[in-house]
Amino acid sequence: MTRTELIKLIFRKRSFLCIGLDTDLSKVPQHLLELDDPVFEFNKAIIDATHDLAVAYKPNFAFYECNGVKGWQSLTRTIQYINTAYPGELFTIADAKRGDIGNTSQQYARAMFEASSSGMDFNAVTVAPYMGEDSVKPFLSCPGKWIIVLALTSNKGAGDFQFFSGNGQHLFEQVLSKSQQWGSNENMMYVVGATQAEMLTDIRKIVPDHFLLVPGVGAQGGSLSDVARYGLTSECGLIVNSSRNIIYASGGADFAIKAREEAIKMQQEMSGILGR
Amino acid sequence: MTRTELIKLIFRKRSFLCIGLDTDLSKVPQHLLELDDPVFEFNKAIIDATHDLAVAYKPNFAFYECNGVKGWQSLTRTIQYINTAYPGELFTIADAKRGDIGNTSQQYARAMFEASSSGMDFNAVTVAPYMGEDSVKPFLSCPGKWIIVLALTSNKGAGDFQFFSGNGQHLFEQVLSKSQQWGSNENMMYVVGATQAEMLTDIRKIVPDHFLLVPGVGAQGGSLSDVARYGLTSECGLIVNSSRNIIYASGGADFAIKAREEAIKMQQEMSGILGR
Repeated sequence: MTRTELIKLIFRKRSFLCIGLDTDLSKVPQHLLELDDPVFEFNKAIIDATHDLAVAYKPNFAFYECNGVKGWQSLTRTIQYINTAYPGELFTIADAKRGDIGNTSQQYARAMFEASSSGMDFNAVTVAPYMGEDSVKPFLSCPGKWIIVLALTSNKGAGDFQFFSGNGQHLFEQVLSKSQQWGSNENMMYVVGATQAEMLTDIRKIVPDHFLLVPGVGAQGGSLSDVARYGLTSECGLIVNSSRNIIYASGGADFAIKAREEAIKMQQEMSGILGR
Repeated sequence: MTRTELIKLIFRKRSFLCIGLDTDLSKVPQHLLELDDPVFEFNKAIIDATHDLAVAYKPNFAFYECNGVKGWQSLTRTIQYINTAYPGELFTIADAKRGDIGNTSQQYARAMFEASSSGMDFNAVTVAPYMGEDSVKPFLSCPGKWIIVLALTSNKGAGDFQFFSGNGQHLFEQVLSKSQQWGSNENMMYVVGATQAEMLTDIRKIVPDHFLLVPGVGAQGGSLSDVARYGLTSECGLIVNSSRNIIYASGGADFAIKAREEAIKMQQEMSGILGR
């Protein structure tokens, strides 16, 4: 999906909501557990109930890998379902935080982007920047694909290294600056946690029009209105993720209905923000 | 495996060799391709041919993930084979470079360490430190398990952020110092690339007796004797990885025999180093 297509999608749906599919088998409602692939069935129900309200879905790989081979089956079926049932209508993010030496990142890129190889074809992958340019570039050589580089994350540990500073710059600012030599706003986004909303003003000075993927609204304590106040651009420039608040809105048989209700709240707030 | 057990293993085998299972389907010899799981059959042959010469194996997850569900099957079968065929004789490293917010790293830990959940039970996992303490700690709460934190990597891009400096310290030194509050030399190692051997003197000032996992010998240009000169301790303190030089020593039907020959060369050099 191109940047132009993504922006069109956002303004058509009046939403910049990403739903995080952090699907935990222990939280899947009882009645699904009898089925062959409860995690996939849960995801499918969530997607069907919210696809018109969200612009993106973000499966969190850890929640699939913990189930081993069966988990990868659920993950693969999920991305295949999105691409088949809603082609061109949803931006898909492999939340995998990958990054390794060049020949290895190239294999990770095949895993995320080459359906003929791995069965999976996401639009984007989250990458960890610690290993630098050659750990990130192989992902950028895939036409039409995006990387989303960790910059300033939403967790407490973000303070440990991301604020490490030298030459008047924090590490996360160095990541934002330096990585712009690797790609453009057409194939690169950044992760900036909602819990760091007040930092968005400074971040926008370095990356004025790149899209930012913003986790941390809801369960982690971030506020959508703060994120929009400091991070919104004329082309939106934001994809705001919510996981637990939506997918676990109910633990019962009505989980998809309740997820839709939560997604509607988010979408309506976003519609108001986009309408300003 | 405890630190004491690992050290015993190294001195018994007179080897600190780790063989990297970066098994690329396109490099697997022709005659294996007819079998149901060529990647696993390749790994099994390599392991059987070298298990007495190596102390560790390190499957590189990217090379499995690129084959999707089938790749995870090969990976799972590989770790299960090592644990079943050679119990207690080999240290196993999930080279996955994971790291995410706490609740997510917890799921990654289950993936790597909990056979009852994922089917996989490694001794150690490589982790990326960018997201800080809470991204790493969940891995440390698994008794008997290790994390191997990226410090100074072997690739060109290591220069992009790992040498970023402030307060007279480089970022990788900050990672080495700060992470010592999270674990001990009983459950934490560091990745230090062989291409950075001359840096090992300074690194040993910060982590005098932690084990270091050293990739980059061979194909990437690092030298074993340099690594030993600057990094060896009285308890060895090193696990040196070689991947392509060993597993692809021959592309023909004799690949396991040739792999053994290369492993013998490494083991003999290591025996000499340990004997000094």
